[in-house]
Amino acid sequence: MKSFKIALAQFSPHVGNIDANTQKIIEQANLAKKDNADLIIFPELSILGYPAEDLILRPSLTKRTQQAFDQLAQVKDIVMIFGFVNVAEDGQRFNSAAVMKDGQVLGVYNKQTLPNYSVFDEKRYFNKGHQHLVFEYLGHKFGVLICEDVWSLNTVQQLAQLNIDTALVLNSSPYEVGKPQHRIDTMAALVKELNINLVYCNQVGGQDDLVFDGTSFVLNKTGELALQAPSFQEGLHLVEFDAEQQAFSKGTVTPVLDTMAEIYQSLVVGTRDYVQRSGFPGVILGLSGGIDSALTLAIAVDALGADKVQAVMMPYTYTAQISVEDAAEQAKTLGVTFGIAEINPIVNGFLQTLYPFFGDAPVDATEENLQARSRGTLLMALSNKFGNLVLSTGNKSELSVGYCTLYGDMVGGFAVLKDVYKTIVFELAKYRNSIAETPVIPERVITRPPSAELRPDQVDQDSLPPYEVLDAILYSYIEEDQSQDDIIAKGFDEEVVKRVIRLVDINEYKRRQGAIGPRISSRSFSRERRYPIVNGWKPGV
Amino acid sequence: MKSFKIALAQFSPHVGNIDANTQKIIEQANLAKKDNADLIIFPELSILGYPAEDLILRPSLTKRTQQAFDQLAQVKDIVMIFGFVNVAEDGQRFNSAAVMKDGQVLGVYNKQTLPNYSVFDEKRYFNKGHQHLVFEYLGHKFGVLICEDVWSLNTVQQLAQLNIDTALVLNSSPYEVGKPQHRIDTMAALVKELNINLVYCNQVGGQDDLVFDGTSFVLNKTGELALQAPSFQEGLHLVEFDAEQQAFSKGTVTPVLDTMAEIYQSLVVGTRDYVQRSGFPGVILGLSGGIDSALTLAIAVDALGADKVQAVMMPYTYTAQISVEDAAEQAKTLGVTFGIAEINPIVNGFLQTLYPFFGDAPVDATEENLQARSRGTLLMALSNKFGNLVLSTGNKSELSVGYCTLYGDMVGGFAVLKDVYKTIVFELAKYRNSIAETPVIPERVITRPPSAELRPDQVDQDSLPPYEVLDAILYSYIEEDQSQDDIIAKGFDEEVVKRVIRLVDINEYKRRQGAIGPRISSRSFSRERRYPIVNGWKPGV
Repeated sequence: MKSFKIALAQFSPHVGNIDANTQKIIEQANLAKKDNADLIIFPELSILGYPAEDLILRPSLTKRTQQAFDQLAQVKDIVMIFGFVNVAEDGQRFNSAAVMKDGQVLGVYNKQTLPNYSVFDEKRYFNKGHQHLVFEYLGHKFGVLICEDVWSLNTVQQLAQLNIDTALVLNSSPYEVGKPQHRIDTMAALVKELNINLVYCNQVGGQDDLVFDGTSFVLNKTGELALQAPSFQEGLHLVEFDAEQQAFSKGTVTPVLDTMAEIYQSLVVGTRDYVQRSGFPGVILGLSGGIDSALTLAIAVDALGADKVQAVMMPYTYTAQISVEDAAEQAKTLGVTFGIAEINPIVNGFLQTLYPFFGDAPVDATEENLQARSRGTLLMALSNKFGNLVLSTGNKSELSVGYCTLYGDMVGGFAVLKDVYKTIVFELAKYRNSIAETPVIPERVITRPPSAELRPDQVDQDSLPPYEVLDAILYSYIEEDQSQDDIIAKGFDEEVVKRVIRLVDINEYKRRQGAIGPRISSRSFSRERRYPIVNGWKPGV
Repeated sequence: MKSFKIALAQFSPHVGNIDANTQKIIEQANLAKKDNADLIIFPELSILGYPAEDLILRPSLTKRTQQAFDQLAQVKDIVMIFGFVNVAEDGQRFNSAAVMKDGQVLGVYNKQTLPNYSVFDEKRYFNKGHQHLVFEYLGHKFGVLICEDVWSLNTVQQLAQLNIDTALVLNSSPYEVGKPQHRIDTMAALVKELNINLVYCNQVGGQDDLVFDGTSFVLNKTGELALQAPSFQEGLHLVEFDAEQQAFSKGTVTPVLDTMAEIYQSLVVGTRDYVQRSGFPGVILGLSGGIDSALTLAIAVDALGADKVQAVMMPYTYTAQISVEDAAEQAKTLGVTFGIAEINPIVNGFLQTLYPFFGDAPVDATEENLQARSRGTLLMALSNKFGNLVLSTGNKSELSVGYCTLYGDMVGGFAVLKDVYKTIVFELAKYRNSIAETPVIPERVITRPPSAELRPDQVDQDSLPPYEVLDAILYSYIEEDQSQDDIIAKGFDEEVVKRVIRLVDINEYKRRQGAIGPRISSRSFSRERRYPIVNGWKPGV
């Protein structure tokens, strides 16, 4: 057996853009060759990008994939292992990996374990593979696996029994809190049990509501990390197998980020990739003086740069002076374009027009929604005129219970905090301030009681339980699938629990029309929690 | 073998409402007993309703289902065949049917063929069954199948080889144009080939974007219909098996509706069930004097009754006088509440507030969107104040190419024409007038050139190709999955095709935030065409 080098291309594909992805694969392979790599491994479905959803069903995909293979065939003197959609002659479709060298396909592996839960719909698109792929190169025996395969003990055991030295695993494993470390811990235990080395190459970057963290790694059969790539960054990472030591030599091991840093980075990357890949010149958002928009602004600036970000404060009668001051201060600190647009004349215009219809009907949430919708329409007008994408600033707690206005504060193409509970919003704000020389979010924004400022002296806690309580109930109900009875039994106030669950249930229609936003939890309101809108399910057991 | 009677409960479940559905099953069984039925068959998953989506994953479903079984066990002297979610002790979950008599479960069948394409996601929820269920009763040999099973020749053949007389098929087969007749034709050919009788009981009613048409039927092995139930209506239908003739006796055979009547009814039922099951007292919509809102109004009135429907005309500077006249006339003919709200002061309020931002920037679609969003906000305010659901009035052609304003004319909880191309909108309007004594849609609304009236003398054809051309291109691209090159090769103008396809591709973000609406096609923009928003797929081959 000889020593050799493997390159891991922690790669951010542009979903659907086969030409661009293929070019990128070629570039990475050529770079790897300069570093004397013998093999290079790419993420799952690297030619098409993941998840490509129903693009996988387009009839011309086979032809396009063939063209990509023809281009890749020009790369010489390195073994490439990349992912593609493999359509067999009988029409069966597989999530596959090709091993190619000097234009020859040495082998094709069809993924055997197809995830069809959570955010995954692979059985909509793919048939199961039934055969392992093992190849020998430089006297070393490699096996190939794709993502979910490696979480199926059965599948991995069967491969290990073919006496491979190293499993090469192509992944598109989306981020959720704690997932980067969890993958490594699980795989470290696995390699020890099965006595194989493991090379894990993961996709990176945002794709709609999913963020891929990368965090690729290489494990020796002892469970020791020979390589761990930084999270949330593209990069080409090399590792050397030392024939004498019969192990991968220790390279750079970048530890995973602390929890708040990890979440924050995922939001930055998700936002950056959505905005840039949708072709927007920049973003605009409503800055209210509250913590949600303040945090969203900080993330937008970190994602795109201050020159790409516009903030607008839209005060009304009920807006506190300190809100205007705090918004202005933050905009100044971050160096973004800032404007103020009073909405009183607009709201009054609506109220006058509606007077013949409303008559003496008492004031209620309708008038509050008019404020929110006037603001939403202003932001959309500025977006339409100058081209910036509107970022929506609502958080997961609000969205869960419908404490937000459809077509009002919910307007926007991307909802940065959509999957972030309010208690975590506070933590993230503090985290962001902690890494800055001067706080980017004014201290007062973090410490004052949250308010939508839609009526005099309003605070969120007039309508909602304290956020620590609300978020705990929401987490139990949404993330943990607990029943009303379970949650009451944990000691929460019965009426509060019933009200919160009822609000979650009746607000499915709002969430369905909301903007997408980056997933950070294991139960995001996107493709992951598919509830009917018309729904007679009764809370209780 | 004796003569016997089977009842088909063409049933509209309330998804998730296990108590209500169970009570309805018991009522139907008791009614059937009064008619001396020996067996009664219900649709697929009749206890929970279909599709219940992630409610199927709630941990307490097993307990709730057991409670339903306990209640159903009280029904005596009739064999009930109903659908339920069967969770096995090892955690495997099946889409199942139970055969119950006098509180005894005589057999359970687990669906073997799980659809996971189009609108179906059954592999997210269920494991495959592997065994047929055959039972003998009154000297007659029955087999049980569930929906997709009967479209799998392999599965049905295996059952037929067990020498059954009659297959009992529980279905929740959603409507699409022509589907009711297609099912019958396909099954008639099948029963002749396999020499079995077939009892097909289908769910009816709207559930979010799906409409179930019912159209249950009974086929003798000769391929002759012994029963065909009316489409889109709940009902209990009986059929008698004549032991002497060895066949089901000919009962009432209601032919399927003509195409336009069929589509129209599906929209009526979809709208009615969405509104009523969401608990809204009525609906409100913007009546523009154009054909989309005119047709939506007619459907709303047919679905809910005129007293439940409110129409508002919201003219602006560019609204033609005849639009106001036609809207008023239609509202009067149909007897709905009608109001007029001029939006000029509101739009002017927006423009003044935006002036410091816009400066001398040229007028563009921004100002048009302000009109649409002022109207949307007014409708939402009236909805918030009085509780009526806003119906959105846009059609599939508009939604395909983004010729509509997000948070403007797209506001609403239910988009009645979402899956109806503009050319079909015209047909449906003519159809509805043809069945009325006096036309409910003013003739001029049908004959004048369509216009959004967002700028002076605007007509849709300024921005879009003629609707016959547009819809033909859209149909090829969306429904038929043809490529740009394919469509150009059919003889359409190259530039037009490229523009239309580009518009479809870049407007995914708008559709994603649109209201749900009833599916009538085989490729609706709902759970059926799942395209990424960030999408680098290049049109062409």
